[in-house]
Amino acid sequence: MAVSAKSVVCLCFLFSFCHVRGAHIPLKMNRTILNLLKHYNISKEEKYNGQLVFSKESIPEKLLEKRVFMRGVLETYETLINKMLKELPTPLPHASGSVGEGGAGDDVRTELNYILTMILKLKTIHYNEQDNLLSSLKKLIGIKMDSATVQSKALGELPWLYEEASDLNNEIQSRRRRRHAQRVKTHQRG
Amino acid sequence: MAVSAKSVVCLCFLFSFCHVRGAHIPLKMNRTILNLLKHYNISKEEKYNGQLVFSKESIPEKLLEKRVFMRGVLETYETLINKMLKELPTPLPHASGSVGEGGAGDDVRTELNYILTMILKLKTIHYNEQDNLLSSLKKLIGIKMDSATVQSKALGELPWLYEEASDLNNEIQSRRRRRHAQRVKTHQRG
Repeated sequence: MAVSAKSVVCLCFLFSFCHVRGAHIPLKMNRTILNLLKHYNISKEEKYNGQLVFSKESIPEKLLEKRVFMRGVLETYETLINKMLKELPTPLPHASGSVGEGGAGDDVRTELNYILTMILKLKTIHYNEQDNLLSSLKKLIGIKMDSATVQSKALGELPWLYEEASDLNNEIQSRRRRRHAQRVKTHQRG
Repeated sequence: MAVSAKSVVCLCFLFSFCHVRGAHIPLKMNRTILNLLKHYNISKEEKYNGQLVFSKESIPEKLLEKRVFMRGVLETYETLINKMLKELPTPLPHASGSVGEGGAGDDVRTELNYILTMILKLKTIHYNEQDNLLSSLKKLIGIKMDSATVQSKALGELPWLYEEASDLNNEIQSRRRRRHAQRVKTHQRG
């Protein structure tokens, strides 16, 4: 009973704290995030400056587009948390006096690893598409446009890409026509 | 007749040259690219080193992802060609002796502008829908992961995004079930 009351208080605290709401998030995950926020602490001014990392306006309305975007969000968290893990201090086995720091770092490491596992679980089970769109787009953004070689090669590659883009559009138009015809057929049957 | 024979020879040359294939590319576009490749010339070693600017493996298989990626490709070409246009020498009206250089630069400028128009046409007419999703994904890619503020804020935003991603998956499953039930019903009626 005492444990249950403590959980209720803890939950109330969770939902009132910062951006943390997550009604369908496992309690352990919410708790872990709160613990991590103590370590990754920032000033109140920064916290409440109204600027979100993931703005709600960026989330598309259409279901398929939203799905592509949410997979991108999960991939971004995967990269971010891996980066945060790499930035943690490595405990040196032979150095004296570094046990305390290493120990604290290990707690954070365990917690970050747990969050990473949860993200990967959601991504692998429910967003397990073959395509890695975000990585492909990153490559596009990373193209070094100042290079004379890149400029020349990109010109040479333009015909097949232009063709690919034109063909894809034709394919979509055909699909739309087929779907429309199917719908009319079903409607007439009904 | 002579013009037609010349066109056939020209086409054969086009298709055997470098990466230029583009069966559905307007002849003028292919010709312009070949002309530009004379100006943006690179060594054979660089040309045939097997490294493409846009690798075929990056193109997603699923239709929506492929469409978003292809819009990204068209946007990349738009930026690249605008950059190449800016890099061209500006003809100085009062400087003597610069007419020849300015003239050659003007040809290249006209050709680059034509290619840019073709890219913008394809992008605007057929890839206008993917604008928002691509922008949202680019924002994800642009997140500055080194920043302590971003790391802390992203942790704080994780619960609602995780919830959003979980809910979306449930919604997709329900829709699939409804569609399947609808299909079975239609089939039974038929």
